[in-house]
Amino acid sequence: MKQKKLWGGRFSTSTNDLMETYSASIGFDWRLYKYDIAGSIAHARMLCSQKILSDDEFRDIEQGLIDIQEDIEQGRFEWNESYEDIHMNIEANLTQRIGDAGKKLHTGRSRNDQIATDMRLYLREEIDSLLILITNVQQELVKLAAQEADTIMPGYTHMQSAQPVTFGHHLLAWNEMVDRDYSRISECRKRVNSSPLGSAALAGTSYDIDRQMTADELGFTEVAKNSLDAVSDRDFILEFNAHASLLMIHLSRMSEELVLWTSDGFNFVDLGDGFCTGSSIMPQKKNPDVAELTRGKCGRVTGNLMSLLMLMKGQPLAYNRDNQEDKEPLFDTVDTLSICLQVFEAMVPGIKANRKKMREAANKGYSTATDLADYLVRKSVPFRDAHEVVGKVVGYAVEQEMQLENIALGKLRDFSTDIEQDVYEVLTLEGSVNARDHFGGTAPKQVVWAASQAAKILAARFVKAS
Amino acid sequence: MKQKKLWGGRFSTSTNDLMETYSASIGFDWRLYKYDIAGSIAHARMLCSQKILSDDEFRDIEQGLIDIQEDIEQGRFEWNESYEDIHMNIEANLTQRIGDAGKKLHTGRSRNDQIATDMRLYLREEIDSLLILITNVQQELVKLAAQEADTIMPGYTHMQSAQPVTFGHHLLAWNEMVDRDYSRISECRKRVNSSPLGSAALAGTSYDIDRQMTADELGFTEVAKNSLDAVSDRDFILEFNAHASLLMIHLSRMSEELVLWTSDGFNFVDLGDGFCTGSSIMPQKKNPDVAELTRGKCGRVTGNLMSLLMLMKGQPLAYNRDNQEDKEPLFDTVDTLSICLQVFEAMVPGIKANRKKMREAANKGYSTATDLADYLVRKSVPFRDAHEVVGKVVGYAVEQEMQLENIALGKLRDFSTDIEQDVYEVLTLEGSVNARDHFGGTAPKQVVWAASQAAKILAARFVKAS
Amino acid sequence: MKQKKLWGGRFSTSTNDLMETYSASIGFDWRLYKYDIAGSIAHARMLCSQKILSDDEFRDIEQGLIDIQEDIEQGRFEWNESYEDIHMNIEANLTQRIGDAGKKLHTGRSRNDQIATDMRLYLREEIDSLLILITNVQQELVKLAAQEADTIMPGYTHMQSAQPVTFGHHLLAWNEMVDRDYSRISECRKRVNSSPLGSAALAGTSYDIDRQMTADELGFTEVAKNSLDAVSDRDFILEFNAHASLLMIHLSRMSEELVLWTSDGFNFVDLGDGFCTGSSIMPQKKNPDVAELTRGKCGRVTGNLMSLLMLMKGQPLAYNRDNQEDKEPLFDTVDTLSICLQVFEAMVPGIKANRKKMREAANKGYSTATDLADYLVRKSVPFRDAHEVVGKVVGYAVEQEMQLENIALGKLRDFSTDIEQDVYEVLTLEGSVNARDHFGGTAPKQVVWAASQAAKILAARFVKAS
Amino acid sequence: MKQKKLWGGRFSTSTNDLMETYSASIGFDWRLYKYDIAGSIAHARMLCSQKILSDDEFRDIEQGLIDIQEDIEQGRFEWNESYEDIHMNIEANLTQRIGDAGKKLHTGRSRNDQIATDMRLYLREEIDSLLILITNVQQELVKLAAQEADTIMPGYTHMQSAQPVTFGHHLLAWNEMVDRDYSRISECRKRVNSSPLGSAALAGTSYDIDRQMTADELGFTEVAKNSLDAVSDRDFILEFNAHASLLMIHLSRMSEELVLWTSDGFNFVDLGDGFCTGSSIMPQKKNPDVAELTRGKCGRVTGNLMSLLMLMKGQPLAYNRDNQEDKEPLFDTVDTLSICLQVFEAMVPGIKANRKKMREAANKGYSTATDLADYLVRKSVPFRDAHEVVGKVVGYAVEQEMQLENIALGKLRDFSTDIEQDVYEVLTLEGSVNARDHFGGTAPKQVVWAASQAAKILAARFVKAS
Repeated sequence: MKQKKLWGGRFSTSTNDLMETYSASIGFDWRLYKYDIAGSIAHARMLCSQKILSDDEFRDIEQGLIDIQEDIEQGRFEWNESYEDIHMNIEANLTQRIGDAGKKLHTGRSRNDQIATDMRLYLREEIDSLLILITNVQQELVKLAAQEADTIMPGYTHMQSAQPVTFGHHLLAWNEMVDRDYSRISECRKRVNSSPLGSAALAGTSYDIDRQMTADELGFTEVAKNSLDAVSDRDFILEFNAHASLLMIHLSRMSEELVLWTSDGFNFVDLGDGFCTGSSIMPQKKNPDVAELTRGKCGRVTGNLMSLLMLMKGQPLAYNRDNQEDKEPLFDTVDTLSICLQVFEAMVPGIKANRKKMREAANKGYSTATDLADYLVRKSVPFRDAHEVVGKVVGYAVEQEMQLENIALGKLRDFSTDIEQDVYEVLTLEGSVNARDHFGGTAPKQVVWAASQAAKILAARFVKAS
Repeated sequence: MKQKKLWGGRFSTSTNDLMETYSASIGFDWRLYKYDIAGSIAHARMLCSQKILSDDEFRDIEQGLIDIQEDIEQGRFEWNESYEDIHMNIEANLTQRIGDAGKKLHTGRSRNDQIATDMRLYLREEIDSLLILITNVQQELVKLAAQEADTIMPGYTHMQSAQPVTFGHHLLAWNEMVDRDYSRISECRKRVNSSPLGSAALAGTSYDIDRQMTADELGFTEVAKNSLDAVSDRDFILEFNAHASLLMIHLSRMSEELVLWTSDGFNFVDLGDGFCTGSSIMPQKKNPDVAELTRGKCGRVTGNLMSLLMLMKGQPLAYNRDNQEDKEPLFDTVDTLSICLQVFEAMVPGIKANRKKMREAANKGYSTATDLADYLVRKSVPFRDAHEVVGKVVGYAVEQEMQLENIALGKLRDFSTDIEQDVYEVLTLEGSVNARDHFGGTAPKQVVWAASQAAKILAARFVKAS
Repeated sequence: MKQKKLWGGRFSTSTNDLMETYSASIGFDWRLYKYDIAGSIAHARMLCSQKILSDDEFRDIEQGLIDIQEDIEQGRFEWNESYEDIHMNIEANLTQRIGDAGKKLHTGRSRNDQIATDMRLYLREEIDSLLILITNVQQELVKLAAQEADTIMPGYTHMQSAQPVTFGHHLLAWNEMVDRDYSRISECRKRVNSSPLGSAALAGTSYDIDRQMTADELGFTEVAKNSLDAVSDRDFILEFNAHASLLMIHLSRMSEELVLWTSDGFNFVDLGDGFCTGSSIMPQKKNPDVAELTRGKCGRVTGNLMSLLMLMKGQPLAYNRDNQEDKEPLFDTVDTLSICLQVFEAMVPGIKANRKKMREAANKGYSTATDLADYLVRKSVPFRDAHEVVGKVVGYAVEQEMQLENIALGKLRDFSTDIEQDVYEVLTLEGSVNARDHFGGTAPKQVVWAASQAAKILAARFVKAS
Repeated sequence: MKQKKLWGGRFSTSTNDLMETYSASIGFDWRLYKYDIAGSIAHARMLCSQKILSDDEFRDIEQGLIDIQEDIEQGRFEWNESYEDIHMNIEANLTQRIGDAGKKLHTGRSRNDQIATDMRLYLREEIDSLLILITNVQQELVKLAAQEADTIMPGYTHMQSAQPVTFGHHLLAWNEMVDRDYSRISECRKRVNSSPLGSAALAGTSYDIDRQMTADELGFTEVAKNSLDAVSDRDFILEFNAHASLLMIHLSRMSEELVLWTSDGFNFVDLGDGFCTGSSIMPQKKNPDVAELTRGKCGRVTGNLMSLLMLMKGQPLAYNRDNQEDKEPLFDTVDTLSICLQVFEAMVPGIKANRKKMREAANKGYSTATDLADYLVRKSVPFRDAHEVVGKVVGYAVEQEMQLENIALGKLRDFSTDIEQDVYEVLTLEGSVNARDHFGGTAPKQVVWAASQAAKILAARFVKAS
């Protein structure tokens, strides 16, 4: 049965069916029920405290809403597309249950401040979960980094082997990336946590409301300062999605590296069978699907950001119906972040370094050439001259298809007489990484220390979600 | 019950549960069942014709697949997330039904060419529907344009009233916009309609297959020329989404105008109650929700384009799992276009011009000033000098708060003695629009002719979908 | 003359000419000279303090760099495309000036940490300027808001007149939008202000450097914790550009409103001739070009964000040459923000409200209908029932083409006998806005208070740039 | 000296200086001078032919414009920012040169149709150049493919070695990608090549103009059908940029592969020193900068697309000043495409395959496992069962760290008694690639044929630009 619209008084013909499908949001905004109900109870409690509702009316409303929430959670609630959205579905049902008191709930508010409140409560809760998930991933990274503090691998620039680094150092670089995401999303939470309730349609209301009370009830740390802005503002959604995009960019970079490291060309790590799939036609394949999918999902979240920016561009104040389109991208971004982080948390501890392959690769790429240049500088050769000498040595080595440490001293001295027997120490991988022994450097000693510092910071955040 | 993976031979431990949720695509790719089955039947028929399958095996496969399709359409088919995707769900079910013949279906193909085939068949069919919907919208626009060929409204540049135009002319501008979308999407269809089948995983297959035969069976007009490219290419999806974005940009522009025209400031048109909604707190509102939502949905489709571009950036050949992420954006874009076009088709015929308001607005903005300048030019005043004279006349009119045609001749001649009594003819709205009587101009005569030409072109496309 | 490349030792053939044009960045990164030089001096001072450079060498380097800076600023410096980038141009010139000491400057660092340092110093300085510009715009908005605290205009939802608001209230909504931009960009500055220097190519360096010292010298509040991350991280650029995009979205929304408000349909404000242009053919036009251009420039900055996200997607660590492409989008975004904010600062004080037109428009749209509903609720009619009654009253008024306050009491009582003589008070515009007298509401009293609070906060930031 | 604005008649105060900088476009639209002049001459010739200009006036205008073009090209023309744009700069200069006739040039047109004409002429010419450049790149790819028709390399899916392919086949996949770009951009050209001239400001003009004549003069194949649409339409720019984005996505994919292939892990190709650069600190590096930069520039072009989509979203008709922002993104996209294609054309012929490394890699990854499965199928094992057997064989080989062809027959028969002595033939790389001998397959025979077919198609396009 087609329902009577709550706002139908003004219209002479009923809404076109196609239009109903087009404009109904209940198909996705039902997810907000918990926040919608919490907001309504807080609003009703305030109306009661301000004598706009009687105690009995408030009691009926509160109980009715609690019952509705239980029905929803038990799958007993009947959603009705012709009631358009979550607000109308709940309010209509409430009125059916408790009669006229239900019709009074909307006093002094509007769907405009109601939806803004719902979205903020939703996002605040999701951010809290995501911050835990981010921390969990960081803890796994830091743990693994400590284990791999002295595992030597080639460090790349331009995908060319540049200098040896430790695998632990590389994992801590990942940790730094995600740590900034934590910091950004935490700060965003402050801007999410502001109460629009009481802004009504756009101008505030003529009832004697107490905005501070509803804000306090709902745990908002701030009351939005301007009613027009409060109903038109979607910054908190866009800002969150921008931070989410950066997080996904980070996961895409890690994923790219995992894809490379598990490829035949590198074969640096094993991800564990649980995180790979096979091929229907090539049984030998062990595809790093999780990494690939995550890399792909980076597009999804960035696309959502673009949708939201496009959505808000050039919108006049205050509320426009366009904004109904803010929900699906946000929900999708939150869901994507959540599953990706969970998957990474599960996958990281299973990353097994193939130390032999890493070492071989580090040995292959003339990765200690810089150390040779530094050696010469310490022998008083100006940096740029040292650089040129080493360039020639490497050219010779490439030609001869040999490693630097295998070139005889006599030959080395053909390039520079400043080279002496002690050069062979700096040409080893261990010599190279141990020498980079300063804050932020790749020396195992530094990595161990950095990992322990990071672990302390993470431990102080909150207990890991079980 | 957890199913055995079809590619499980190689793996020692079972797939992590979270990972299964992460990587399964059956939640959205089930939509492709019709195309997957059509592709499988064509493939099997070819294998049979090439003696790779026996006649009996083919018959069993074909009948099994037909039965599966019916089960799916009747809602009787049991989807299983642990079979990951549409291909595996159908193949596993087929083998359950018909035994060993089912296990032979995948001979000489791979999921890589299979999914590319499915997606192309899907998009081709959807494009065919969209081309009809676009045409329907155009027909409504052209019909309305013909009716409103001599309705005068202000033409705007910079949202300032510039010159009078006819409403029919404006509607034909909309038709031109959408007409280019038709042209672009038609051309894209050609590139969609190419058969990847037979490319197998990436290199082709060692079976003696007949790619032309499967292409013909499936109505493809071309066989993809390179197997590596055929399994890695998603151009057709990106190109379609780029065209879709442009179409949505067009709808956003029309929507913006409808929102403006129904606002109190303009009040140029009425959209019909069926395409508006009211407000829960302000009963007098008649909100152009369809237009606003459509404007908002422009973000959705553009976001999908961005997702897809991001997805493909920097992907090495041939197939990577990232590409699983190509489906949801495409499906969403197709669905969005489809409903938006349907809504426009339904809404356009109900657009009622408020001719009185349009005329008043056209009168208000000194919109015939250009005609005065042109008048002076015809009296041999150089264009730039004429322009300066008219600027001063308008400055005077603004100051006096009067219309140009109400300025006395004597006063006008203070600005230029070239002005004579006949000037008042060019200052009328009708005089202005009738004067723009050339191909593409706003004169009612031109609009009537242009609308009839457009109607002929549209009629020649195909019979309007009932 | 073609220069010898500083890294040319290894190569047997010279770089292809086309390639040189392709890869040189000096055409745009010369802008960083000031930061490059400051970074080099700090680095050299540290090398000297660590006894890696002699006092004389440091003195020569410092003086040489100071001289170079002066030459650049006087336009006397000869840039050379074959020296590729800002770093090489300066270093080569330095060596020409001071000899071997110049060749020692690059000891213990790499272009990878050098460019990261330059970019952070650049952006930090630009952020400081932008925060002043944002504050200036806010101050103008707040000043104007205080002046227009009791100017009544229609408040819009769905671009339909909804309820009367005060213009001051609307301007404060703008202030809130920009205030969040200030908050976001301030927080971003903290993440910008971290020193990558000492990370060298990617792994740190084998010299005994003092990273804290260079960080202090350059005013960085933090030393980057991981060398690999420090040279590959471009988060600070992406985060800034995300915030910049939001700021431009805000300016696009204000611009949209200015375009509407200056259009014939509204005619609510005048922008001052200095911020409009005319038309070459329609002399009566006064086009709000600044607003239109700003709305358009929103695309530019959002496009830059997209470029940067695309750039970083899937990049393996540490430095890749792709990152050369981070500069032009950032420079363009900074320049765009800077000029747009300056233009707004100059334009806002010249916004003149056309109070008569605003009032007329507020009167036209049944904007006090909500007040009638609230009136009925206060007479104990449940909100939803009151809403339905008012809907019918408005329907009647639309039909009769009359305003609510002009309907006779007898007629009003046909709709509800709860309506009495005192109803006419709530139907006035003043009655409506004054009634919304709570924190964040549109009542003039609230606006005056909110503006004074905002002014205090802004005044506490810093003295307005002269 | 500050110039008098050509549209200054109406304004009482002069334009704000900052505003002038903000709104002037001459800094970038000067590039259109050639097209602006060609358009003006065609327009003037038509005005003369229609007796709106005298023969003398036309002659003066034409000669004046020719002289101006020469002055511009000789660097003698004085651009003036206060004349805002290219149109005003040229027209003002013309009037200085030839007097009153210059003031008549703008008769019957507006800057709105003029700029649309300029942009279309510009883009048409650039497209013609780009189509040649694309063809050149394709020719190099096809040539190299023919040379490398039987070079065996691993084909990858999920970056895991999947099956052996030929390098020539891979290069032809690249050719297919770019071939679609050619097709798309060619089709776009048709939509670019339509004449807006005569649309004037938005409504057409009251002069008796001949739009077909100007279209013919300028080589347009079509006259734009609707004046309102013609001045507001920027589709041709957006469509081109969408195609350009796809092209850059393709180049980014090729670049990614080149980066991988030149990395130590693969070492498949050498790019030639001319296309690589070294490192300031690691002299052994040979960085594939061209590939990296191109991969990065993909972001630039995609960002431009996003800018343009954002720009046009929600714009009401007809011309808005926002559209001034369409130029820089388009110019940047054209320039980027042009240089990238030139660089690829120069780089491709220097790609040297390291056949030994490619072969070794193909041997390593069990890439003939599929062939073993196919072998079993031919022995009547159902595909899925064969697949499972091979999975176990590979598992055994991985465990034993041996290649498939090195497993003894007896051992193989432990997995399936269908395996016989002839199995060793299908396990070789040559056996594998030669077996894929159908249209589009990787067999050398197919590659040679496909390359020759492609070469014929390319040769038929036009003679390669020298």
